[in-house]
Order: sequence, then structure tokens, then C-alpha cells
Amino acid sequence: MPKYALGLDFGTNSVRALLVAVADGREVGSFVHDYAHGEAGIILGRDPNLARQHPADYLAGLEQSVRGALRRAAAADRKFRAEHVIGIGVDTTGSTPIPADAAGRPLAFDRRFRKNPAALAWLWKDHTGHAEAGEITALARELRPQYLAKCGGTYSSEWFFSKVLHCLRTAPEVFAAAGTWVECADWVPAVLTGTDHPAKLLRGVCAAGHKAMYHQSWGGLPDAEFLGRLDPRLGQLRARLYDRAYTVEQVAGRLTAGWAKRLGLPPALPVAVGAFDAHLGAVGAGVRPGTMVKVLGTSGCDMMVAPLAQDLPDIPGLCGIVPGSILPGHYGLEAGQSAVGDIFNWFVNCIRPGGAKLGSHQALTKAAARLGPGESGLLALDWNNGNRTVLVDQRLTGLVLGQTLRTTAAELYRALIEACAFGALVIINRFEEYGIAVREVVNCGGIAEKNELVLQIYADVTGRPMKLARSAQTCALGAAICGAVAAGEKAGGHADFAAAQQSMAGLQAKVHQPQPGAHQVYKRLYALYRQLHDAFGIREWNGNLHNVMKNLIAIRTAARGGT
Amino acid sequence: MPKYALGLDFGTNSVRALLVAVADGREVGSFVHDYAHGEAGIILGRDPNLARQHPADYLAGLEQSVRGALRRAAAADRKFRAEHVIGIGVDTTGSTPIPADAAGRPLAFDRRFRKNPAALAWLWKDHTGHAEAGEITALARELRPQYLAKCGGTYSSEWFFSKVLHCLRTAPEVFAAAGTWVECADWVPAVLTGTDHPAKLLRGVCAAGHKAMYHQSWGGLPDAEFLGRLDPRLGQLRARLYDRAYTVEQVAGRLTAGWAKRLGLPPALPVAVGAFDAHLGAVGAGVRPGTMVKVLGTSGCDMMVAPLAQDLPDIPGLCGIVPGSILPGHYGLEAGQSAVGDIFNWFVNCIRPGGAKLGSHQALTKAAARLGPGESGLLALDWNNGNRTVLVDQRLTGLVLGQTLRTTAAELYRALIEACAFGALVIINRFEEYGIAVREVVNCGGIAEKNELVLQIYADVTGRPMKLARSAQTCALGAAICGAVAAGEKAGGHADFAAAQQSMAGLQAKVHQPQPGAHQVYKRLYALYRQLHDAFGIREWNGNLHNVMKNLIAIRTAARGGT
Repeated sequence: MPKYALGLDFGTNSVRALLVAVADGREVGSFVHDYAHGEAGIILGRDPNLARQHPADYLAGLEQSVRGALRRAAAADRKFRAEHVIGIGVDTTGSTPIPADAAGRPLAFDRRFRKNPAALAWLWKDHTGHAEAGEITALARELRPQYLAKCGGTYSSEWFFSKVLHCLRTAPEVFAAAGTWVECADWVPAVLTGTDHPAKLLRGVCAAGHKAMYHQSWGGLPDAEFLGRLDPRLGQLRARLYDRAYTVEQVAGRLTAGWAKRLGLPPALPVAVGAFDAHLGAVGAGVRPGTMVKVLGTSGCDMMVAPLAQDLPDIPGLCGIVPGSILPGHYGLEAGQSAVGDIFNWFVNCIRPGGAKLGSHQALTKAAARLGPGESGLLALDWNNGNRTVLVDQRLTGLVLGQTLRTTAAELYRALIEACAFGALVIINRFEEYGIAVREVVNCGGIAEKNELVLQIYADVTGRPMKLARSAQTCALGAAICGAVAAGEKAGGHADFAAAQQSMAGLQAKVHQPQPGAHQVYKRLYALYRQLHDAFGIREWNGNLHNVMKNLIAIRTAARGGT
Repeated sequence: MPKYALGLDFGTNSVRALLVAVADGREVGSFVHDYAHGEAGIILGRDPNLARQHPADYLAGLEQSVRGALRRAAAADRKFRAEHVIGIGVDTTGSTPIPADAAGRPLAFDRRFRKNPAALAWLWKDHTGHAEAGEITALARELRPQYLAKCGGTYSSEWFFSKVLHCLRTAPEVFAAAGTWVECADWVPAVLTGTDHPAKLLRGVCAAGHKAMYHQSWGGLPDAEFLGRLDPRLGQLRARLYDRAYTVEQVAGRLTAGWAKRLGLPPALPVAVGAFDAHLGAVGAGVRPGTMVKVLGTSGCDMMVAPLAQDLPDIPGLCGIVPGSILPGHYGLEAGQSAVGDIFNWFVNCIRPGGAKLGSHQALTKAAARLGPGESGLLALDWNNGNRTVLVDQRLTGLVLGQTLRTTAAELYRALIEACAFGALVIINRFEEYGIAVREVVNCGGIAEKNELVLQIYADVTGRPMKLARSAQTCALGAAICGAVAAGEKAGGHADFAAAQQSMAGLQAKVHQPQPGAHQVYKRLYALYRQLHDAFGIREWNGNLHNVMKNLIAIRTAARGGT
């Protein structure tokens, strides 16, 4: 009798449920539910930094997506039965903290805060806490430099304490009502298993380590004295948070009878501790030492692992180096770009170039594919949503340079793709500069699935083959792998992650190989990109930009055959 | 019996004929004829620097526009008779040199060169001669620094000898066949008066002085030795050019019987020496000492005059300081921006943002007008067609900085307008730094006529009232004023330019006043613009750009009320 694991993937705009055969990774049923609130699930404000979600969308999405996936699996495979599901894993976006009352119930469900955006889930891409991020960074540099050493040297506005402190400062009534704050990745498994009371709630090391400065060496989260220096009320919150965090190997609890019924699943299924989408996406893409998994979606995540035995230096600009955050027994290393697909979407949906027919992703991609590297004379920075790695500065903005009176929308679109590829190369180079060899790059995520031009440009810019994960939904697959490990070998699952990945994850046959001619042009463009990157991104930079436009023209001229 | 003067204005895309009452400037008939060749009259090539026109378009446009204007005048005023026209003036774009055979006939009419773009008119915005411009500048710096002192210190790719030398290098068969090269502004009056044979042709000082390094103090054009150092064949051409150039006060000749018949005008009408559109546009806008006339069209020209008695310094970056080039008895000073309306047109026509409904100039202007200064966090450079003043560098390119994931097309459109306004302020400041006080700014040209938002932003950025010339076609009006002066007082025209301007030119009542709050914001943005301007535009610059984006965000935050 084949066994199945259920992976739940809570993304930025929707939630996906995926049923996977534990023996061979076959995906038998999948269903996506779009969040109802806001714009594509994101509640926006006048401040462009604000991005929130309603926890009700998570619950509705949970039910609809699981029921949909079960229905689809039953339709696709007559032998499939919900009773063959043996475990559940969960991934979500992050850091997406939710303020909850003393019983663990999100304040967004409290009528008092119905209209208060501070009571919602603070989505990963919310940057309202940028001033607080600066404060935390400054104080940690002074008092607790070790806190920053594991997260790239700068505490980000995207992260847990920046958001909590910003809430304290700007919506003190919400902060005062919050018994605790819980990451979405921890909250969903807790709800499913009835362990959402703060006394029972298991916190994942992925969110804790990458976003909340958790590390065993200093006893878990930052201490109350440090937090109290930011604000005494934040110091008092420390006791209402947690002292220990767990890897995804751990079972968070067992599916309650109520949720089992609501979802149409057997009761008491083991639910693994939750983690972030990119981390479990890496698991689903087969991450192992030497493999960089690039999760290319609205933003970009670059995930690597290194054995705990390896002596790792602190790597400036990396979002985190956290034991157990991806695979148990390994450091999880996370880097990334604050926007990738979001930049292409911005261009198509906000600027709406080229009229109705020529302005779709498909049409622009087709036209951009006909251009050669360097031909447009354009150069862009991929910072429309800030820079996560290596500058760790969410308040940087986009730049496009080199426009003439004949620049086309397709040229701009290609320049934005190239900018993302240059940003990706900065990250690869940073890993290697600090001794983490990148021997293989495996891509996954919506953009990798949908846009071959992006992968080819990444190959040409980096000079490395771009491989593709076999699954089109590696995050949900990674979550399902957690479910299979949580179930364990006896229940028909897997004994450990190595075995589960071996059985359930894999690569596609097609590989995008770098083209040497294109790579040569991109080497020249990358040097200019670095010049802009350093000039606009590094405070201490002091140089001369004058050659940038002229060099671009020289490259354009060469690319067009000297005219 | 009222008398009329005819102004002929050969623009970038079309020719306009305008009939004006010499007594009061009343415009009784006007007609525009669009050029037939190429894209909107411009013949393009694969090289984005190439922009040519066919002289046949000038002749066809001449006939159609004059006949149309006469028809319209007769329809509008029953008493109007073609016999009441007493003189003709001509302005054209420039530097737009035409290679012609030994008899003065354009080579474009020679069957041998029917398909050779080098035989066409080399339109002002043709930049194919950028390498040659560099050569000429370098040689002049070494051998004849005086040549550059009157034209801003750098010889431009837009100018006469850059184009002629580029033709010599890339189309030697055309260069060899050219008995002479004639500016469009000189060719049209010559054709009308049958003086197009090189031996008879009168050359205008406007084109000669601003574009061909003509100055009486060194005996006219650059000497044969200097030109011969660039190429011996160019040295030999010197003898086939000219030694003297004339102001628009001068009569080029009298209308031939053939052309009189073809146009429907009385024969033997005096035709004034031709000049450039911006220069006669300044005349038609009432230019006088202390008044800057801004001709805002596809590109922007900033025209001033100063009495010949004034002791003028050489002003670095100005396109020219030429005695008599605008008004007789005054220095004509020309500065400008290589693109203004062309940048807005590029955004609307090449990028086509916002879909069909939201992407028109009207819709974008309306949406941009709702934005406050600094709100978008965007900053742009107005260099999509290079920078004419003060950097004199046609190979600079555009830049837009500050994009987020929510940046809109209207925000980008406004940023492009603001960039042009910042560029305009650089020019005003340069005039004043060198002792030419700008006491009044009078705008004219298509953009000034059509777009109030542009004028308001110019007022807010510069902190100066923006006035508007009364006539909607100041270039053609300026040409008509030349016609009235050419006719002279006895024939019912005017004795001199002061009298003609007094009678025929004027201002509109509406003035766009600077808003102090907006000006304060723009002062901060202008400082950042200057930083980018210097960083990307000045070779010797060495500084730190890191604060640019952060300051933009601070300004945006303040503009939105601190959120």
C-alpha cells in the first residue's frame, strides 16, 4: 500500500497543499488557494513599506487547499485514500510574525483590533520597521556583537524584532494586548495540533535562528537586558517568548480530531515543526553540501548547507548561518534577493509597458530573448525592494541607466532580468570568498519553472550551468519530506532526511549551459554593475562613475557589430 | 492696406508657413505640412545615432505650407490678398548640413546617391560624427583653442564639421562628389531666390558662428591648415565653403518668378538670410537683454542676447556666443537640452506605459499633476539624447533612480519632466555664474504651449515665474519678423528688429508662478540631481553617491507627511 505525505506551503499570495508518495516523490494531488484579503493576499497601506496579511486567510486556505488536493489525488489515482496519508509538514513565508493574545489567539481575530493593521500578520516584505532595524543593529554592535555575527552583521527590517519593536512604538495598544508573538511558520503547525497556547507552542529554529537572533551559545533569544535597552516593554516581552527552538526533524504535535475532520484526514497524524518556504524548498530541491539551491519566486533565496563539523567563518552580508535550519546536522546558510519576480511583475503590472498585446510577461520575454547581451546599452540595479544580500539594506531602491530615445520595453525587461542575475552572482561570489564552494546550482520556484530566458541569462552571467529541480513545487515537496520523516520509517515514512530526499527529490534532465560568448560580454557588464552596486550601496565607497555610460555604449557597439 | 510678412519654419518633423500682419502681429493664416520620408520625416538607420532628412521634403513642404497658409488667410479674412505679402523670412533646424554638387544641387537628388543616406540632409540630431567631434575638439585644443572658446569648449557631434568629416570617413564617394556643403537654413532662402549656386549663396552667421566655428576675428571659418590636419581632403574643401556670413538683417535675394508662381506669391519679394529655428523663435518671443527665451520642443533651446558693447567672458559649456546670431547688434547666446519633448515622447511612444487609456500624454500629465514634488522618490537624468549644455557630451544616456515595487508610470513621467527642469536650472545657473543676469524667462514651443504642468514644474524647480510668448509659433513669427525687416519701412515693413518686435511680438497674460513649498522640496532634489549630474557627467569627478537614495526616501517621507 503506497503511503503519502502532505506538504503545506503558505506563500506570499496563496497556500498550496501537495500530496506526495513517500516511496518515489510522485505528486498525486495539489491544490492552490488564493488569499482573499488585500491585493493578491497582501494588505497594503499608504506607506509603501507596509505589507500585512490576515491570519483568517491562512485558515481558510488550509482547509480549501487540503480538501482540494485530496479531491485531485482521488481523481488522479483511484487507489488513493486519505487514510494513506502518514504525516504533515508545513512551510510559510518569514519572518511573518503574528501578535497573539495570552491564549495564543491572533489579535487579528479580536473585534477590538478589527481595523488595526498592526494586529495582522506582518508579512516578510513589510519594511515599516526600518528605523527599528537600525536601532537594533546599532545597539547590538555596541553591546552584543555576537548577535549580528550569525546574521550578516546587520539586523534587517524584514525580521522579527524590528517588526515587534515598530508595533510597540506605533501601535502600543496592540503590543500591550499581545501575550506573545508567533511566526506564521510556528503558528500553523500549532493550530493543526492544538498546541497554539504559548505554554505548548514549539518554535522552529529556522525562524528563530535566521530572524530572531536565536543561538544556543547565548542561551536562545537575545537576553531581556538587551531587549530592555531598546524599550523596557520589549525586555518584559522576552519572558513571554521562548528559550528553545526545534528543527524540522521534531514533531510539533498530532493533528486534532477537529482539524482532521475539517480537512478530511485521519486524526492524530504527526505534524512536523514548521520552517520557512525557502528552507524547505531547498530540501525539496535536494540541497546538500556544495549545492546552492536558488528559490526564484517573487523574491530570491539562495540556500546552502555545510556539515556542522565544518569550521565556518562568519560571512558578512549573509542573512544567517543557523545550525539545523535547513537539514538536521548541518548549518543552514541563507542569502537572497529581496525581489526577483516582483521586479518583473512590477514592470508588467505597474508600468504596463507596450500596450495590451506586447506588455505581457510572455511577449516581453519573447522580445527580450531576441536581444543579445549588452545590446541595449542598459544597466539596472535589482533593488526595487532593497538589497538583502550582501548589502543588507532594505531602503536601497532601483536604478536603470543607459536609456536613449529608442530604448524599448523589451530592452528594459531584459535589463531587469540581467540585474537580478548580476545580484545572484554577487551572492555566489560571496559564498565562495568565504570558503563555501558552490559546485552546483539547482533552481526552483515559479520563475525558474516559468521563464527559460531567466535561467539562460543566469547561466550566461554566472558562467555556471543552471539545473532545475524535478518538482515544480519544491517548497511543498520539502514540507512533505518533513511529514514523511515526522511519520518515521515504521509508519511507512523515512528514517531521516537523507533517505527521504533520496527517494522523494530529484533534478530535471534539462540544464541551461552558459554560452561562452555571452559570458564574456556579461563579465564586462558585471564589472559595471559592481561599480554601481558599490557606489550606491556602500557608504564608504569613494570612486569615479564617469566611465559607466561610455563603457556601456562601447559594449553595445561591439554587440551590434561595431555600428 | 494692411501688409503681411511670411515666416517659414522648417522643423524636425514638418514645415510651417505663417502669415503675420506687420502692424500688430496678428496671425492670419498658418499651415503645417508633414515631411513624407522616414519616421515622422526622419530617416533612421540601424545605428541609433543616425538621423537624416530628404531635401525633397523641404521643397514639397515649402509649396504645400505656403499655399495652405494663403488659402487659410483668404478664408479667415476676406480682405487678405497674396499681393499684401511684402517679405519672407526662413528658419530651419540646425546644424543640418546638406552635401550639394558644384552647382549647389543637393546630392540627394542625384540618381547615383539615391540609396546613400550620406547624401541626405544630416539632421541636427544625427550623432554619427561623435568620434569626429572628439577629433576636432582634441585638435582645436592643441592648435586653435580660440575656435572652442566661443562654442563652449567642446565641438559637438551635432555640428557641421563633425558631420562633414564623418561623411568623408564613411562615405568618401559622397564627400568627393560634394562641391560644397550647405546648411538647410541657407539652402531654403537660396532656392527661393535662385542664389543656390555656391558662388552666389549667402551664408547666415547663425549657423556659421554656432556650428562651424566661424568668427570674424580669425577670418571666418577655421583655416585650411587646421582642417587639413584632420584630413587633407577637408582642408581642400575649405576653399569651396565661404569667408563671410551675414545676419538676418540682410536680404538673401528676391523671390524668383518660378517660385512666386509655384507658391502663389508676388515675384521679387525680399527673402531674409536664414537662421535657426530657436534663434528666430527667440526673436518671435521678444528676446532682449535680460530675457531668456526657452524654446521647448522635441529638444530645448535657451536663448539670450547681450549688447555687443558688453564685455562677455567665454562661458564653458555654452553652445555658442556669436555676434549677430539672434539680433543684429547683439551677441547671440545659445544653450540647450538635447531632448525635452523627445524624452516624454519616448516614454509614451516607445515604452507605451499604462495601457491604451492611461498611457497618453494627457492622461499621464493629469496623473502626474496629482503628485507632489519628491513624493515618488524618483530622480532622473534628462540625458536620453545626450547633454548639450553644460556638459557638451552627446553620448551621455538617461538614468532613472529610486524605483520601488509600487512605482507608477505617472511617477516616472513626472520624474522625466522634473529631470528636464533640473537640466534647465543648470543652464540658468551657468549663465548667471558668468555675469549674464536672467531677469525674465519667456517660454515658447510646442511643449510650452501644450503642457501647463511642465511650465509649473519649471517654475517650481527654478523658483522663477515662467512666462509664455503670445504666439503659439514663435519660430515662424520670428521668421516673419525677419521678412518684415527685410521688406523695410518704405514697403510697409519695419526699419529694424526693435520696431518689428515691438509691433509683432508679445506675451500671454498667464504666468506660472513658483510655489514656495514646492520650490523648497525641489531645492533638495536639485542638490541630488547635481550630484548625479557631476558623478556621471564629469570625468574628473570623484565623490560619494551613497546618500542619494536615502535622501530621496527622506524627501519622499517628508512629502507624504512623515509616513
